[in-house]
Amino acid sequence: MKQTIKKNYIIEKCYECFVKNGIENTTTRDFCAAADVNANTLYYYFDSKNEILVECVNYGYMQLESTLFDALKEFDKSSFDIFPRLTKIGLDYAPKMRFLHQAVSSPAYEEYREDQFKKVNAFYDRLGMELAERFDCPYELIKDYIYEIMTLLSYFSLWGSRDMAAIQFNRIFIDFKNAITNYREIRSLME
Amino acid sequence: MKQTIKKNYIIEKCYECFVKNGIENTTTRDFCAAADVNANTLYYYFDSKNEILVECVNYGYMQLESTLFDALKEFDKSSFDIFPRLTKIGLDYAPKMRFLHQAVSSPAYEEYREDQFKKVNAFYDRLGMELAERFDCPYELIKDYIYEIMTLLSYFSLWGSRDMAAIQFNRIFIDFKNAITNYREIRSLME
Repeated sequence: MKQTIKKNYIIEKCYECFVKNGIENTTTRDFCAAADVNANTLYYYFDSKNEILVECVNYGYMQLESTLFDALKEFDKSSFDIFPRLTKIGLDYAPKMRFLHQAVSSPAYEEYREDQFKKVNAFYDRLGMELAERFDCPYELIKDYIYEIMTLLSYFSLWGSRDMAAIQFNRIFIDFKNAITNYREIRSLME
Repeated sequence: MKQTIKKNYIIEKCYECFVKNGIENTTTRDFCAAADVNANTLYYYFDSKNEILVECVNYGYMQLESTLFDALKEFDKSSFDIFPRLTKIGLDYAPKMRFLHQAVSSPAYEEYREDQFKKVNAFYDRLGMELAERFDCPYELIKDYIYEIMTLLSYFSLWGSRDMAAIQFNRIFIDFKNAITNYREIRSLME
């Protein structure tokens, strides 16, 4: 196994440990068992448990992003049907999102928080620009909706309340759809 | 010291430990040192570290609520100046809020999450009803704003981004103020 592949494999397995047991109940021993390596090998790839944590957070957000983008491929351009699907993916991601919250909230994560926040915002921008392209409208029009959706997703993942999430997401998606529809109408009148 | 007072004192001290070092780096030894008790006394009041965690989460939300309500007392009824003040309190609370996130996100907290979520929503309702009373408008009018404010507060506490928070809060407060002002205008026209 090449080194990068091996490292990524270990990150994936450590991530699963964290998601399952939480940060406070995950030990080096758990990492080694899950990734089938010994502690020497583990700490050949990572300087510390904290570095593993940082890599796992980054991995978790990348995984969410690729899951969302993969789902988009299944839909026709301009189809509003993506909304419930994206919501479901987001809500199903809740246990993993809770690990991400746990990590980012930790005082041990303090020095990495700002950097990860930039990465998360870049991910929201990529998602927003993909949707803008699909719906043939400017990113500026939908930026706030993307933001609101991801903020809510974060909040409901924390509390695990799907019912309340459904109500709030429904409200945003109606606004979002109206914004796009209105924009297109106005644009067609101006042509 | 009466038993309840003593218990509350221990919770307060354990809470401070959690906020400072995170859940994963806080031990029974830290609790004992902070509260100046031995382990026997500590576990006379609490069954487990998990019970301490649950009590600390509840304490943290109650503390936020009383800080917000105390601040309200300093303002005249109907004064929109409360908005920046409440925002500042919320943002200053970020390190504590991050502990609350850390706790609620933990798999160990799973069985308590739903119950705490109900308490948090009841707190939002009390805050919303107090503001409705102050601004002399129906709670239904402002309920969604309270919700949006608290969701954002939660999100920005997580990431610690005050700049981005200021932009978003400003947007909500303008909407909130407009909703109240418009409502009053309409009502006065109908009188």
